[in-house]
Amino acid sequence: MTLPRLQSLDDLHPGDRYELGRLTLSLEEIQAFASRYDPQPFHLDEEAAKDSIFGMVVAAGLHTLSACFGMLMASPLLRDISLAGSAMEVRWPAALRPGEEVAVTVEVVMVTRSRARKDRGSARLRYVATRVEDGVVVLDATGLHHLRR
Amino acid sequence: MTLPRLQSLDDLHPGDRYELGRLTLSLEEIQAFASRYDPQPFHLDEEAAKDSIFGMVVAAGLHTLSACFGMLMASPLLRDISLAGSAMEVRWPAALRPGEEVAVTVEVVMVTRSRARKDRGSARLRYVATRVEDGVVVLDATGLHHLRR
Repeated sequence: MTLPRLQSLDDLHPGDRYELGRLTLSLEEIQAFASRYDPQPFHLDEEAAKDSIFGMVVAAGLHTLSACFGMLMASPLLRDISLAGSAMEVRWPAALRPGEEVAVTVEVVMVTRSRARKDRGSARLRYVATRVEDGVVVLDATGLHHLRR
Repeated sequence: MTLPRLQSLDDLHPGDRYELGRLTLSLEEIQAFASRYDPQPFHLDEEAAKDSIFGMVVAAGLHTLSACFGMLMASPLLRDISLAGSAMEVRWPAALRPGEEVAVTVEVVMVTRSRARKDRGSARLRYVATRVEDGVVVLDATGLHHLRR
């Protein structure tokens, strides 16, 4: 399915759901992100990670989040209407392992029109990343987006 | 102040507050992060950003968050006790501009000991980044950390 290029906040309806595609992070990408933004041994060092609760190197949670969010913002969906974002709630029910494929979807949770500014409003969008192999969710996040009308 | 290297969840007490230091993101860093994880014009293109609600290039919210979180995880504070993280709530009350200096603090909000596993527990830690020039908060996030006892 090709994603539409929305032209207004009014094109979003609670319950709408879009498939953003599939995502995989390599060990090298995981280590590069972690070395700058989350330098813990279980994101960096294969040997040390064996002693962690993960048993192997896994992606930093903020890396999983950023990569999934990046798929949304690189897609045409909000390209013409995105003004800013101001809040997010995130859960990582499981860790993302190197080379593992996840399917990323975005769902419209809530749409609010601004009373003061008729040309804008906000939407709560939920991004979920699900491991293709076994259906385990590795990311469940909801962001507050400010959008044009 | 040198940050301590905590040896147990029990070393954290609600209300404890640590200064992680100061942070600045350059235009080049902002563009590099955004090109991969949030490729919107107001994070990438100085000319296009003039027409945005920010009026100039600003850091992606996830970049501000990741850079501040990275300061915490690169510090000695949780180095010996961090097991994992599983949730986060984030607000970005203002955007971080290139070259702007922010002071980053972490505060202990809540500490919970596990009943099932005496050797671990969890803590809610709040990270706040405040613009040095005028005291404006650019990041206010609270993460759920799983820690050793």
